[in-house]
Amino acid sequence: MASAGLEGLVVAHLPNIRYLTGFSGSNALLLLELGRATLYTDGRYREQAGQEVEAARVAIPAQGNLWKAAAQRAAKLRRLGFEPERVTVAQRGRFLAQWPGKAAGLREASGWTEALRAVKQPEEVAAIRRAVELAAGVFAPTVAAMRPGMAETAVAGQLEYRLRQAGGEGLAFDTIIASGPRSARVHGRPTAARLPARGFVVMDYGVILGGYVSDMTRTVHLGRPGTRARAVYAAVREAQAAAIAAVRPGAAGAAVDAAARQSLRRAGLGAYFPHSTGHGVGLEIHEAPRLAATSTEELVAGQVITVEPGVYIPGWGGVRIEDVVLVTADGAEVLTPTPKEMLTL
Amino acid sequence: MASAGLEGLVVAHLPNIRYLTGFSGSNALLLLELGRATLYTDGRYREQAGQEVEAARVAIPAQGNLWKAAAQRAAKLRRLGFEPERVTVAQRGRFLAQWPGKAAGLREASGWTEALRAVKQPEEVAAIRRAVELAAGVFAPTVAAMRPGMAETAVAGQLEYRLRQAGGEGLAFDTIIASGPRSARVHGRPTAARLPARGFVVMDYGVILGGYVSDMTRTVHLGRPGTRARAVYAAVREAQAAAIAAVRPGAAGAAVDAAARQSLRRAGLGAYFPHSTGHGVGLEIHEAPRLAATSTEELVAGQVITVEPGVYIPGWGGVRIEDVVLVTADGAEVLTPTPKEMLTL
Repeated sequence: MASAGLEGLVVAHLPNIRYLTGFSGSNALLLLELGRATLYTDGRYREQAGQEVEAARVAIPAQGNLWKAAAQRAAKLRRLGFEPERVTVAQRGRFLAQWPGKAAGLREASGWTEALRAVKQPEEVAAIRRAVELAAGVFAPTVAAMRPGMAETAVAGQLEYRLRQAGGEGLAFDTIIASGPRSARVHGRPTAARLPARGFVVMDYGVILGGYVSDMTRTVHLGRPGTRARAVYAAVREAQAAAIAAVRPGAAGAAVDAAARQSLRRAGLGAYFPHSTGHGVGLEIHEAPRLAATSTEELVAGQVITVEPGVYIPGWGGVRIEDVVLVTADGAEVLTPTPKEMLTL
Repeated sequence: MASAGLEGLVVAHLPNIRYLTGFSGSNALLLLELGRATLYTDGRYREQAGQEVEAARVAIPAQGNLWKAAAQRAAKLRRLGFEPERVTVAQRGRFLAQWPGKAAGLREASGWTEALRAVKQPEEVAAIRRAVELAAGVFAPTVAAMRPGMAETAVAGQLEYRLRQAGGEGLAFDTIIASGPRSARVHGRPTAARLPARGFVVMDYGVILGGYVSDMTRTVHLGRPGTRARAVYAAVREAQAAAIAAVRPGAAGAAVDAAARQSLRRAGLGAYFPHSTGHGVGLEIHEAPRLAATSTEELVAGQVITVEPGVYIPGWGGVRIEDVVLVTADGAEVLTPTPKEMLTL
């Protein structure tokens, strides 16, 4: 803050607040001053904030207007940073209406906490590893119970039940179970559609454990796969391996993305890979760094990312394979223990 | 738009986009012009957008910069509305960097779609009713399986499994299972904590069905309730009934909130009710109208709201009772069919 000429920083993004203070509630604002931190929340969280927060003073403003309370507390400060990617135009307006520093004093300070969060501490890597292993552990029993004719929602239900039974605190994101031609939807939410006698099922899911998330995708095939199904699966598996092989400190996110993309292009499937190759995971399911064609930032040891190329052919089906990968001092460690051979049920 | 002097409206909030176009993906921007609508999304959603969207043209910009693409399309418009509560400072900046109309042409148009969404069409009420009934249906079997010593996460797992088996598309929000002294946390996420031999368990959960959400809370008691537990439960039940009795077209949200609050105050428990009495539900779990002390807006027939007072005594425990309620032409219809007598296990 001091080196940026700021006397304080307003932190609005909840995962950033959790990272900085430990508070895990759904409504909060954090005002950082030199030598002092104040966490604003509402009455629902009085008890929880008291238990979770140590390094900040907890304030529960009457009327619940967190932005107004923070602006009043910051009345004597003249230059404050805020997160332009996380603050709405209306929130900024509510703050400025109460704050003598006015627009000229409110400076954009983008991604400060996110940059800290991108490189994980050893205990964070351990937490992610536990979440990844919990999630991986329910894959085999869920697949073993899958039968043609089951609804996608029933598969999701069994999967999520096992995640809970194993101690999951919640889902990291909406589970994707997309079967048959629906597997060509990159983000296919489970529906009443029945698993086909023959075709792919994309299973993409994650769990929250100790506040940290997992994220994995496997694609299984019901019935005997045809030539095209085998070829597409092999191409995606090869592309994923190529991308993992490109992960190392100093590699640009774009280079990892390019490794997957070139591999699929060589297989004649480049046109069917419409998304980026991966993203950081941690307290959030999508965080820094990005592995996309436009990602110039270089990977750093301690980052934890997904590597997840896919191929989606409209009307036919799709395949995605995704692991969580730790960037190590000299390369990559795949944290997801689940095999990637094509599984035929 | 025309009566506000606008030539177009940029809609960024995803539930608003879903309401206006049917698109249910996780990344989109909608540009409404007089006589034309363009939905911007990314390549992951090409197939899904083609299937879901009828009334808008679908555009998938190269590089995935939706704000830039919308600004270029809107280059000839001079006065555009946007949602200040839904657009970040950074998104507004990205739009203005590309848009000749500049800041003076970009006008705040707050809550337009939300106001439409607050009053439900009959088919929306039917969808909410189906979600509410699905969720209510899993309550009794889940409670029947609850035993002292079970982990809160295991209870959540059984509950969520039943929601999925019954066809739920997902959870409306993170399930709350808070037992014993943890029930004094208003938003207690399930943990490894074991159900006590004697004490309350707050169960607050919701499901998504047909895109619409349910929201219900019941509080059960394990073991024989003491005098205080019976008194607190009775007071919350009475407060909830008082609030429901205050629901009618023309009543201010604050009046419904006051009915619950006064009832608890008469029982000597006013200090232990730290949250508002309810909120609208629909495509989102929290939408207009609000039932809070500061809610001056009047209820309208066709709105669907929660009524959910609670009492939370730190170190001892808490009780909340919540139904989904339809504002009818002459009062209220409680959609949640689950009984509210104190259930002792």
